[in-house]
Formats: sequence, C-alpha cells, structure tokens
Amino acid sequence: MTVKQLSLPALADACARLGVPAVGLWREPVAEYGLDAVAKLVRDAGLTVTSLCRGGFLTALDPADRARALDDNRAAVDEAATLGTDTLVLVSGGLPGGSRDLAAARERIADALTVLGPYAGERGVRLAIEPLHPMFASDRCVVSTLDQALDLAERFPAPQVGVVVDTYHVWWDDRAPAAVARAGAAGRIHSFQLADWVTPLPAGVLTGRGQLGDGSIDMREWRERMEAAGWTGFVEVELFNDGLWARDGGEALGETVRRFVSEVF
Amino acid sequence: MTVKQLSLPALADACARLGVPAVGLWREPVAEYGLDAVAKLVRDAGLTVTSLCRGGFLTALDPADRARALDDNRAAVDEAATLGTDTLVLVSGGLPGGSRDLAAARERIADALTVLGPYAGERGVRLAIEPLHPMFASDRCVVSTLDQALDLAERFPAPQVGVVVDTYHVWWDDRAPAAVARAGAAGRIHSFQLADWVTPLPAGVLTGRGQLGDGSIDMREWRERMEAAGWTGFVEVELFNDGLWARDGGEALGETVRRFVSEVF
Repeated sequence: MTVKQLSLPALADACARLGVPAVGLWREPVAEYGLDAVAKLVRDAGLTVTSLCRGGFLTALDPADRARALDDNRAAVDEAATLGTDTLVLVSGGLPGGSRDLAAARERIADALTVLGPYAGERGVRLAIEPLHPMFASDRCVVSTLDQALDLAERFPAPQVGVVVDTYHVWWDDRAPAAVARAGAAGRIHSFQLADWVTPLPAGVLTGRGQLGDGSIDMREWRERMEAAGWTGFVEVELFNDGLWARDGGEALGETVRRFVSEVF
Repeated sequence: MTVKQLSLPALADACARLGVPAVGLWREPVAEYGLDAVAKLVRDAGLTVTSLCRGGFLTALDPADRARALDDNRAAVDEAATLGTDTLVLVSGGLPGGSRDLAAARERIADALTVLGPYAGERGVRLAIEPLHPMFASDRCVVSTLDQALDLAERFPAPQVGVVVDTYHVWWDDRAPAAVARAGAAGRIHSFQLADWVTPLPAGVLTGRGQLGDGSIDMREWRERMEAAGWTGFVEVELFNDGLWARDGGEALGETVRRFVSEVF
C-alpha cells in the first residue's frame, strides 16, 4: 500500500532491485491481478508475503450483513493461504449506523472470531487484530488500543488470533509498551508495521501517515521494544500518504528503504 | 467557544433569554473586551463562570520558553480569580520541535505544576488538566487519557490540580469509565464538557466537533456516569464547529440548549 501506484510485477521488480525480501499485500490489487497469478509472481520472485490486508469489519448488527462479513473473511483466509502468508490483518469495523455502543460492537467481533479463528487455524493462517488509532473508533475500528486487541485475542488460541503492532496507531499510548511485552510473552504478535505521525492531519485523516523519520515517533525505540518482546519477524512499512502516492513508485520505495535503514536501525 | 461569533454582551443576553445560568469563557475574548469589564458583565448578568480556558502549554524545553509559560499561566490564574471562577482549564502542550519523547514532556508538565499548583491554590483556583484526544498528542497535548491526567493530578493536592472530563476526547477509551469513578472518588473532577464525535474529520481535525446528538457518543450515559461519580456541577457544551460558527450565534446557542435538554437528560 505504501507504493500502491506500482503494479504487482513492477513492485516485485522494485523489491528485487532494492533488496526488499518481503511484502505485505492488500486484497484489492491481488484480486485485480488474479490470486493465482500473484501467488506465482511472488513465488517466482522469491518474495515472502508477510501478511494479507485485510479482513475484519465484523461489527454489523444486521444478520445478513454479519453472514456476508463471515463469508468475506473466510475468503480472505483462503486467499492468504494461497498467497503463502500465515497472517491475515483484521480491521475490526466501526459502529454500525445509529449505534453508540462500543462495548457491544467489540463483543460482536469476539463472536465472529469464534467462527473465524478455527477456520483460519485449520488453514495455517493467523488472524491479526489491528488496533487502529482512536480517531478511527467510530467509522473503522472500535478496537483502539493494544490492550483491547489483546483482551480480544486472548479468548482464542495464540495460533488463531493475535495482534498487529502499528506504530502509527499506538505510539501515543503510555500503556502500549507494557502491552507489547504482554503480547510478545503470549506469542500474540503477528505483525509489526511502521508509519510516522505527522501533522496537520488531512481531511478524513486516512492518508496522512508520515514517511519514517518525518514525524514524532521514535522508530528505533519501537524496533528495540519489539525485539525485547521477542519479535524476530519482518517489519512492514505501511504508509497511506497522498504525497508518496503521487510520486514515481520506484523512487518512493527507494526513499522508504533508505529511511528504513537510517531511522529504524 | 461554542458561539464565539457572539460578543460577550450578546452572549450574556442570549444566555438570559435562553435560561442558561453559567458559561465557560476563553481568555482571548475576555482580554479583548477587558478583564474587569467582563467580570462586571457576568456579575451584573448573574452568570456563573464555570471555567476559564486555557492555561497550559507546559512542555517547552527551552528555559526562556518555560519561564514565559509559567508567567502566562500565573496570569491566567489571576484572570480566573478576577472572573470569579474556581477552575482554570489546562491544555498541557504537545511535543516541542524535534522531540519524540512523550514521557519526558509529561514530566515537564508535572514540574510546572509544582510551581503553578500552589500559586493557583492560594488564589482559590483549581487547575484542571484536560486530556485531549490522542490525535492531538504531538501538537497540542501529550496527555491523552483520563488515567494519564489523573496520574499527573494526583501528585498534587486535590484543591490544586484535577482533571477535565470532555466526552469528545475520552469517549473511545474503555478505561475512561473507571477513571471517571477514580477521579470522582478523589475529588479530582474539576470540569465536565460535552461535544459529540462526528466523521469525517476536517483537515487539521480541530473544528469538527459535533452538535450533541449528531454523533457517536451517548451523552445521557456520560451524564449518568459523571453523576454516579459524584459530579454535581455545571455541564459545559464546548463545540468547535465551523458550521455552527457560520450561523447566527443566538440561533446556534438555542439549538445547543434544545439538544442539551433532549440528548443529555
């Protein structure tokens, strides 16, 4: 998503040229290019698929909507398995229209996971609940903190349900460091993503994530914190950034790689 | 601030006409009209001043900047005393330029309060730390949750330092209800403010607060929660809303009063 302006073959080429060994993929471009074709593309390129984004949106009240959401998440699990990744990122969903009950919405997520967790586990895919910044609580994700995500995940076996740690969403939270340790100790960290926090936020606040080093988050400290919690996996850089998307994709990816080296290590 | 398009005399008239017994004031319009003149205006109108907004911005690193901030906050305490309100709202400040250390910034707030707390207490003014929504953590307020605000406040006597509970800033937090109870039991709730959460957020995210009833927050539940924690004071409605500001001030205040009655009680 950081360089969504690149086609998937161009992305694979750019990764090879820049020495990027692994990518996180999103479902929409995968579906557009064709699931089996993408699976072959990444296999031939020797690219590891770190995660597939995204399942979730499990907070609907209407039974038909809930059934559709479960179907869609089962499809996402299947896609993840086909792509050879062990991690499906979940953006849990916001408040359904007219509802003001965050706690009930969180319970509906847990209900859905009782179905989806075993389905994923049987296919070697882990569901990764991503807490989103509280500014998305109403319209995208009622799970706003790592502790909330862990509270949900821990109702299920660790190989079925864990969490995503994305610096952009949790950097402000003074309880996040303890939650990272808690998640690591429980084997619940399924994905680690980086984006920097920059202001002013754009209208709609979705596409204002900062390039590493441009903002308020100490990337090195977060990488060290994750390593202290036992994280040995890949680190994703996930920037939703209008400025980055407007540039040449290869050049934008090159800058991101340089920042990754200088800011994270 | 909800009807900042009104002059202070027009605000006093509108409050009288609509049966609003109390107002929260901001320092800028008070200074513009003249501190003593405003004190006389509200006294003559029989209006209670619920709070003065705002002191704070206590996170600077530069010693000269810190000294200036202390001076400004002492002035704000004096202004509050002159206006006859017992509460000065503090917006604590964001990260200084180039800093990524939220914890250190929070400690500098505590340092400043060791000076300002006694100064305020001697003048019958309580400092009210307002946790701001985490989307303001970098540029406005490194205190993002009620628990953080209470952790700071509880280092000082309750008559000196407490907290603001503003629904807009804390509604998403599943720990906020326990924090409200904790604050109430400790006599630390110094102000209660309402605004609703609506999306999409505007660019800069400052002026998108929703009219009561337009958004995702259950205002009645919050009022009941505050009462259960012992709150018996006035309830402020503080809407930063471009649409509301563009309308006739008396009409906007009238709508706010109607919503207050229908949504909060």
